[in-house]
Amino acid sequence: MKGWLFTKTHVAPRLIEKEDPIAADNEVILDVKAAGLCHSDVGALEDETWMPYYPKPVIFGHECAGQVVKVGKGVTQFKVGDRVGVCPINPETGITIGYGRDGGYATKLAVPASQLIPLPDGVSFVQGAAATDAGMTSYHALFTEGGAKAGMKVGIVGIGGLGQFATQMALIEGCEVYAVDKNPAARQLALELGCKAVYENVLDLAEHQLPLIVDYAGFGQTTADAVEAIGFKGKVVIVGMGKLETTLNVMTMIQKQVTVKGSNGGTNEDIAGVYAKFATGKLNPTLTTIKFEEIGDGLEQLKAGKVKGRLVALI
Amino acid sequence: MKGWLFTKTHVAPRLIEKEDPIAADNEVILDVKAAGLCHSDVGALEDETWMPYYPKPVIFGHECAGQVVKVGKGVTQFKVGDRVGVCPINPETGITIGYGRDGGYATKLAVPASQLIPLPDGVSFVQGAAATDAGMTSYHALFTEGGAKAGMKVGIVGIGGLGQFATQMALIEGCEVYAVDKNPAARQLALELGCKAVYENVLDLAEHQLPLIVDYAGFGQTTADAVEAIGFKGKVVIVGMGKLETTLNVMTMIQKQVTVKGSNGGTNEDIAGVYAKFATGKLNPTLTTIKFEEIGDGLEQLKAGKVKGRLVALI
Repeated sequence: MKGWLFTKTHVAPRLIEKEDPIAADNEVILDVKAAGLCHSDVGALEDETWMPYYPKPVIFGHECAGQVVKVGKGVTQFKVGDRVGVCPINPETGITIGYGRDGGYATKLAVPASQLIPLPDGVSFVQGAAATDAGMTSYHALFTEGGAKAGMKVGIVGIGGLGQFATQMALIEGCEVYAVDKNPAARQLALELGCKAVYENVLDLAEHQLPLIVDYAGFGQTTADAVEAIGFKGKVVIVGMGKLETTLNVMTMIQKQVTVKGSNGGTNEDIAGVYAKFATGKLNPTLTTIKFEEIGDGLEQLKAGKVKGRLVALI
Repeated sequence: MKGWLFTKTHVAPRLIEKEDPIAADNEVILDVKAAGLCHSDVGALEDETWMPYYPKPVIFGHECAGQVVKVGKGVTQFKVGDRVGVCPINPETGITIGYGRDGGYATKLAVPASQLIPLPDGVSFVQGAAATDAGMTSYHALFTEGGAKAGMKVGIVGIGGLGQFATQMALIEGCEVYAVDKNPAARQLALELGCKAVYENVLDLAEHQLPLIVDYAGFGQTTADAVEAIGFKGKVVIVGMGKLETTLNVMTMIQKQVTVKGSNGGTNEDIAGVYAKFATGKLNPTLTTIKFEEIGDGLEQLKAGKVKGRLVALI
């Protein structure tokens, strides 16, 4: 098998060859078909504080999808030939692919069967890969933590990668979406997607007295303003970490009985939720495909801020 | 009937006589038996910003208990002779007794039957009155919002009036309670009540990785420290408004998936919950009784900060 090996910060990952993995008990081997390139990989390449997450050199990549080619002892729910996505983190062991064990920038991947999610017909491997990190995180905040549902009025702050994913999924679900972004182009996009109204400032959401605002920007003030703008007994979910602090009005929190919830990652169920949205044919985040051999270059482009939407390598 | 009439800020309420109230449809008339004196009455007497809550002069007092002496048309769940407590706020109209309509510093009170809670045998009118505001608010934050239950480890910050109520109720419920207060006397009291451990600083709670911390102090830093100290996926409930802002660590909120919830007031169910705790015979908040005629003096004492525990007038 081939894979992109990460060794340490400031050292570019390199494409290596190694022996094919063997399926351990309760694990499967996948032919990886698509792997998304994530900003956190750039983080690890640029910032030494990430190194504790990498106890030893590993094959990089934590968002991928592929086809089962071998099943280990004890695997009953999946069989050779199944098309699947991979939940990056194992909820039992806490081990994440591409961090604590080999990941998806590879031709083959060994992974516990408990981390697999069936890919529905009509959902591509590229979509299947993109859904497992940005999609899952976005879905978890909006639906699992936020409780968004059809007919509900929802505020979405920050129409970047996660926010666009969320906006589209909320609209597919049947929510009435109010979007906020500082950037006029992002607001224009939100309107084209079908948002009811768009605003430059979070405080402008106040006129709608929304039950839910999800802050995908997380610039401190955006969260504080969301608390001010939200309706009685409303919920503000924070996902973005644009700034590390937020100063909230305690009297508003108490009088309106506001909930502020930090959301992080997600589960197999969240990924399955994203797949269901992809299966409608209406979910179209910007996904740009590259070749497996271009992953190194792709990470460089990501580092340089030259990428729009998500880069996904075809393997 | 007699009652203490509040007219406006900076004018002491005065004891007046007026005609007995008549029971409107779906309302009852109570002989008020006990009425608690609340700091918010002092607020209205000292701070003009409270005046919008008082559209016209009213009989003061919003925490009381009494006995039904008349029932209006449509009242089926209560009958003459029933011992009851009164939920201060009507959830349908939003009208609070002692604010938008006549309250409980009175010999008689007209109130919608939907705001009555049966007083169990063995729970006194004095306890019944005290339970309807401080007790309800304390219970709502701890149990209804916080989800405290038997066997759960709970942090309680601020062992003042509400915090003492909460500490005792949590212990009666069977929680393992960790208390925090800057004041050594309050910490000593918490230990005597049966807390597992007491601390001067909220951050010291971190060693227990608690699922729930209720901040009855609300001094900004106490809430921020509670977010730092709480366990994975834990919940911080804010009740106290000691300071009007809190600056929270967004990364901690997201990585630990913390929930911060503002809690305010409560419902009939919360008051019934407090009554159930009183009925165990183990709930003993500091309650000092005065006479009906002493309510004016009592409010002066409260204003001067001379009151320990709760003053309750016997009527």
